Amino acid sequence: MLQEKLKELLKEMEPQMVAWRRHLHQYPELSFQEEKTPAMIADILRELQFDEVRTGVGGRGVVGVLHGGKPGATVALRADFDALPIQDEKEVAYKSKVPGVMHACGHDAHTSGLLGLATVLARHRDEIPGTITFLFQHAEEENPGGAIQMVEDGALQGVDAIFGAHLWSMCPVGTVWVSAGPVMANCDDFIIEIKGKGGHGAVPQETVDAIVIGSQIVGALQTIASRNISPLESVVVTVGTFHAGDNYNVIADRCRLTGTVRSFLPHVRDKAEQRLIEIAKGTAALMGGSAEVTYMRGYPAVINSEAETEIARQAAAATVGWDNVERMEPTMGAEDFAYYLEKVPGSFLFVGAGNPHKGAGYPHHHPRFDIDESAMLIAAEVLGRAALDYLDKHGR
Amino acid sequence: MLQEKLKELLKEMEPQMVAWRRHLHQYPELSFQEEKTPAMIADILRELQFDEVRTGVGGRGVVGVLHGGKPGATVALRADFDALPIQDEKEVAYKSKVPGVMHACGHDAHTSGLLGLATVLARHRDEIPGTITFLFQHAEEENPGGAIQMVEDGALQGVDAIFGAHLWSMCPVGTVWVSAGPVMANCDDFIIEIKGKGGHGAVPQETVDAIVIGSQIVGALQTIASRNISPLESVVVTVGTFHAGDNYNVIADRCRLTGTVRSFLPHVRDKAEQRLIEIAKGTAALMGGSAEVTYMRGYPAVINSEAETEIARQAAAATVGWDNVERMEPTMGAEDFAYYLEKVPGSFLFVGAGNPHKGAGYPHHHPRFDIDESAMLIAAEVLGRAALDYLDKHGR
Amino acid sequence: MLQEKLKELLKEMEPQMVAWRRHLHQYPELSFQEEKTPAMIADILRELQFDEVRTGVGGRGVVGVLHGGKPGATVALRADFDALPIQDEKEVAYKSKVPGVMHACGHDAHTSGLLGLATVLARHRDEIPGTITFLFQHAEEENPGGAIQMVEDGALQGVDAIFGAHLWSMCPVGTVWVSAGPVMANCDDFIIEIKGKGGHGAVPQETVDAIVIGSQIVGALQTIASRNISPLESVVVTVGTFHAGDNYNVIADRCRLTGTVRSFLPHVRDKAEQRLIEIAKGTAALMGGSAEVTYMRGYPAVINSEAETEIARQAAAATVGWDNVERMEPTMGAEDFAYYLEKVPGSFLFVGAGNPHKGAGYPHHHPRFDIDESAMLIAAEVLGRAALDYLDKHGR
Amino acid sequence: MLQEKLKELLKEMEPQMVAWRRHLHQYPELSFQEEKTPAMIADILRELQFDEVRTGVGGRGVVGVLHGGKPGATVALRADFDALPIQDEKEVAYKSKVPGVMHACGHDAHTSGLLGLATVLARHRDEIPGTITFLFQHAEEENPGGAIQMVEDGALQGVDAIFGAHLWSMCPVGTVWVSAGPVMANCDDFIIEIKGKGGHGAVPQETVDAIVIGSQIVGALQTIASRNISPLESVVVTVGTFHAGDNYNVIADRCRLTGTVRSFLPHVRDKAEQRLIEIAKGTAALMGGSAEVTYMRGYPAVINSEAETEIARQAAAATVGWDNVERMEPTMGAEDFAYYLEKVPGSFLFVGAGNPHKGAGYPHHHPRFDIDESAMLIAAEVLGRAALDYLDKHGR
Repeated sequence: MLQEKLKELLKEMEPQMVAWRRHLHQYPELSFQEEKTPAMIADILRELQFDEVRTGVGGRGVVGVLHGGKPGATVALRADFDALPIQDEKEVAYKSKVPGVMHACGHDAHTSGLLGLATVLARHRDEIPGTITFLFQHAEEENPGGAIQMVEDGALQGVDAIFGAHLWSMCPVGTVWVSAGPVMANCDDFIIEIKGKGGHGAVPQETVDAIVIGSQIVGALQTIASRNISPLESVVVTVGTFHAGDNYNVIADRCRLTGTVRSFLPHVRDKAEQRLIEIAKGTAALMGGSAEVTYMRGYPAVINSEAETEIARQAAAATVGWDNVERMEPTMGAEDFAYYLEKVPGSFLFVGAGNPHKGAGYPHHHPRFDIDESAMLIAAEVLGRAALDYLDKHGR
Repeated sequence: MLQEKLKELLKEMEPQMVAWRRHLHQYPELSFQEEKTPAMIADILRELQFDEVRTGVGGRGVVGVLHGGKPGATVALRADFDALPIQDEKEVAYKSKVPGVMHACGHDAHTSGLLGLATVLARHRDEIPGTITFLFQHAEEENPGGAIQMVEDGALQGVDAIFGAHLWSMCPVGTVWVSAGPVMANCDDFIIEIKGKGGHGAVPQETVDAIVIGSQIVGALQTIASRNISPLESVVVTVGTFHAGDNYNVIADRCRLTGTVRSFLPHVRDKAEQRLIEIAKGTAALMGGSAEVTYMRGYPAVINSEAETEIARQAAAATVGWDNVERMEPTMGAEDFAYYLEKVPGSFLFVGAGNPHKGAGYPHHHPRFDIDESAMLIAAEVLGRAALDYLDKHGR
Repeated sequence: MLQEKLKELLKEMEPQMVAWRRHLHQYPELSFQEEKTPAMIADILRELQFDEVRTGVGGRGVVGVLHGGKPGATVALRADFDALPIQDEKEVAYKSKVPGVMHACGHDAHTSGLLGLATVLARHRDEIPGTITFLFQHAEEENPGGAIQMVEDGALQGVDAIFGAHLWSMCPVGTVWVSAGPVMANCDDFIIEIKGKGGHGAVPQETVDAIVIGSQIVGALQTIASRNISPLESVVVTVGTFHAGDNYNVIADRCRLTGTVRSFLPHVRDKAEQRLIEIAKGTAALMGGSAEVTYMRGYPAVINSEAETEIARQAAAATVGWDNVERMEPTMGAEDFAYYLEKVPGSFLFVGAGNPHKGAGYPHHHPRFDIDESAMLIAAEVLGRAALDYLDKHGR
Repeated sequence: MLQEKLKELLKEMEPQMVAWRRHLHQYPELSFQEEKTPAMIADILRELQFDEVRTGVGGRGVVGVLHGGKPGATVALRADFDALPIQDEKEVAYKSKVPGVMHACGHDAHTSGLLGLATVLARHRDEIPGTITFLFQHAEEENPGGAIQMVEDGALQGVDAIFGAHLWSMCPVGTVWVSAGPVMANCDDFIIEIKGKGGHGAVPQETVDAIVIGSQIVGALQTIASRNISPLESVVVTVGTFHAGDNYNVIADRCRLTGTVRSFLPHVRDKAEQRLIEIAKGTAALMGGSAEVTYMRGYPAVINSEAETEIARQAAAATVGWDNVERMEPTMGAEDFAYYLEKVPGSFLFVGAGNPHKGAGYPHHHPRFDIDESAMLIAAEVLGRAALDYLDKHGR
């Protein structure tokens, strides 16, 4: 079976994958501003004689479709390709050439790895029992994200299941982390604009003190986690900024709070939003002021399906051995891969890319972030095996 | 007696007093930056052949001493002369010619009125049963204020009592407001710098949330007024600014609060300061952070002495009639006249200067602030009468 | 004038006044349960051949009217006569003989002193230029109080002004304390009944935690004094009881708070009541519960009128000398004398009755409370002088 | 194998098991007061010729040891047998005959079911490849619980693994609920005794208001769940009672809070305890009072081991079919089975016992609680199969 040969075939592709990755690393493009990256991807896919190559999907995404030699189901694989507004401070030959922009989250390697896999599979398309759709996605780093745009633009047309992987510098290269159920959080933001009534600091009776209101709201918001949500479920409500007042002896008439709310389950998300609004408006009103709340829902939670996650686990084990497959604990972070999983079953997993000896020991979004490039091969093999195993299992 | 002639003598001086006032109004000087104003004052006093004219007192103050024809006690009269960093928006011929600087609190008129009185008294010095010390003070508007500097530089040398007056645009011209006891507040400022531990908004357990600490401190500070100070005594604790956090999804590591504390009595002031520090430090500590508190004592309370205030009341009544002498309610505002009263008995009173028909209807510190200039004569007469009455009463 | 002879005449009455007081002390009667006390008072007044003696006034009060020999105004003098539910723990011959009931606030002496004065004045009625109405009042200690009942029953019929005095064990005998304006507070009570939703302590998400609501309300109530009322005015809001929950691991469904609100000015009283209700109901609602507030207005503030207080001050000085007349600081305590002052001008003053050498050093309402009985003579003389001076001044 | 015959053998025992259960149900005994129940158990085990029957284990527990016909490992099975201080309000023939005491949690059936299994296994002991230790435990319902006492008294001597089951009226009879990892919580209690300084409700400045302190503590305790513990981990901190104050117009000098803290992980438990103490003591101190905290650790979390839980799952499936084996969600409730699992691996599972048609639809601890008695057979079969499967797997 093709699966058995993947490791070897990908190994042969390694120099090309590294070359692609280092090229992308030097020419990073910000979310929603990607131009050369998708163009390069589309060129490669066309050169591989993909059955279909569609660009500008949902704005800047690229979708490549590869029909196998035998009829079957359709499985999608996804890589994102946007960079971040961070100055590259590494000292390496492939350092970013764009000031203030950097691939500090590994998306360059996601794309290069998936291009390597695409090359291998295109060359062996006759052995594929179904169709594989390659989704190269723009703008994962910034709301509203490219995933929902690509979904709305038909990127999942005919797709039965999807797999994706994230390289992770904080886990050692050679390990793969996967588990079913919720693995990344709903991620919402809020702004609370409090309006009181200003006045001289010595005559509070003629004012409505917006700082006192804001402080009471911060206090009362703690009860969402402590009282309104089951202790068995996860929620976090953080007020990240609190700004009010210009002068020490003037009572502030306005106060602005902003923050984030994370959760996994829809009913928890709904409840937290409802309570946040009730607390902000109710507290301001009872103190004689008012509050406007803007609640912005961001990426939903990434919830891996059971069956596809089992396929991914087996694929990971075949790639790195059972000893190196770990159960992934859910994190409160966010990923717009979630939008694909709202439409089709699938699994999103993490592939260790850390290796301090190769400078790959900094956290994601750090100015010195880097990866062990061999992790690209692992990610490509796991995704390739998962796709082929899925098609084998769902063959017609 | 000289008192009886004062009204008429001052009336004759009116054009000169107005001229002085309008000149000063056009060339205002900021606190601690006064140069031409004290020079002009000293020139006038010297021309009047004052027995002593000392400049640079406590930095920029001017002290003029006038010995009367008969031996007796020494009484001081004080006027301040600094302006404010406010753009004059009035449309009058004597509008400020200094961009962004303006006599928006009437100190120009305080000084011109007292110069008018000085002229009249100098011309009639033989009739004065004692010595009158004229204190022209810089920098009343800005901490630490000129008063304490002048006191430390000997301005009250030999002085037995002191009187001062503030024109007040929010009271109708023709009225005088006076009462014994505390009439203006202790006025202190504070800065609370809270240090927590920052981190990602979704992992609060690894952080110490400085916004939560700041909010708890604001809440607990309310108990100073509600629980720690007698309801029969006055205190106000206002947090005027609350600033923390740069990013909605990052837990803030620092939080800065600033505010003001006002009170009348020393033990209330002490208690409020003590409680504020205990609350800020204690709350931060119990939440796992820390707080540094900078507590800056500003002007102390203006506390009028009984006997001298009675003299001032009689002087006011002789000037405007009993029907126009009002009991002055204490205010939580501040005045560095307080420092003189810490050394010698005396009384500080308010002279109505409001007259909407003449454009004198805006509050102090307003860009369109103005006064009814005839209030200068009233202030001068009341202060002159009070000084002479005091000397009569304390003659040797 | 009769005033001049009062001290001597009262001195002759001293043994009788002490006898009356000790009798009443041994047979104290609780508020609204007084029977023998008013009967004894009425007997004495009738024996003195008062022009009018009315009993059962407003329930249990006694009103005695004494017309003087000359026409004139009418002035009222008031003494209260109820006792308290406290066990007398003094070791004196005249110790209370009623278990658990005690004259622990000096009302026995108020009444005996006024009876002594009534005797003297009745014997010299020809010299009185007007009418004196003696009000012996029941139930000062307990809401709604006897004063309002007597007022509603016509006790002030024809009365032009009123004076009253309270003996005070914490001030030395020989001193008198008096001042104009508000001297005792509005005194209101409240009950806040919070309703949440109970449940197991480990499943807060299914509950509305009444203890969390109650705690937030207590916190927010502190802002009434700190933010809603001028620092120049007096208010106190105290939550005296907080009771909720029966079991450490069950979330409480109800919480009951009770407390007191004190103030002097009507608009402060109104504002405090309004804010208390808004805070309680608003906080409970925003947390998903509800609150019922019972706000019970008690005695209003005792506000002495200027002119009558000046008469009282002169009377006090004539009695004990100016050196022993003190300015009375307002207290947040309550007195239903306030109801009389709502109808007619007058003054309520305090007469020192403390003398540790005679066992008179315990605070009012203490089980060992006692007075220096000579204070009765002082109170009687001050009230007698004030009444006569008032009639002299308002003679026709 | 013996497993295969268990269902049939237990079915034959059903009348006896029901008889035992109904007898125990009529004669319930409270925790730490059990006498007749353990005596009856011991009699039965002795009659079955157990190899060892030990009574008074850890106080009132009974341990019966049954050596199989073949050498092997040792597995323990546990049933508890104490009742609750609740009045039985059911109308059934076997209603409790002890006023105010009732088997309202199904422990009578736990014990009768395990006795039935003991009977079957004793009769077939030759077929058992190892040893089975039967733990009949007293006092599960009340701290410190019988489990820790029995453990300390050697009940687990030689035991390699343990299984236990709880009947559950809120799940339908025929279902079994089981899962690995933490399934029941750490369960701790606390008492916070706050000491302030009392005084009259109108003079707060002379007091330290214990109700204000208590309220601030309740507020700050909410931050344990919201800020101090990972949102991915479970904790609940509930203040169940708050009592302070006797009189609405007296400021309370003391305040007593009691509550419960639940968690699963040791580091969460430690952190919650630490923060609770810091918050209580720190808040009281900064307000000028003090707090004493009594923190009582109750039952630890029940944490099922992976391997033994898989055995239990297979046993459950063999008993009721895979369709009726459910994943058990963790609950914040507590069970002292946890103490056994601290010493040896094992699994604690729930066996549905609800059947509204048979009156078994009330929650545990309800005065009308009852079970579908056929659940005893299911529990017995699952435990029997799990024990035998374990011994088969760990045979020597």
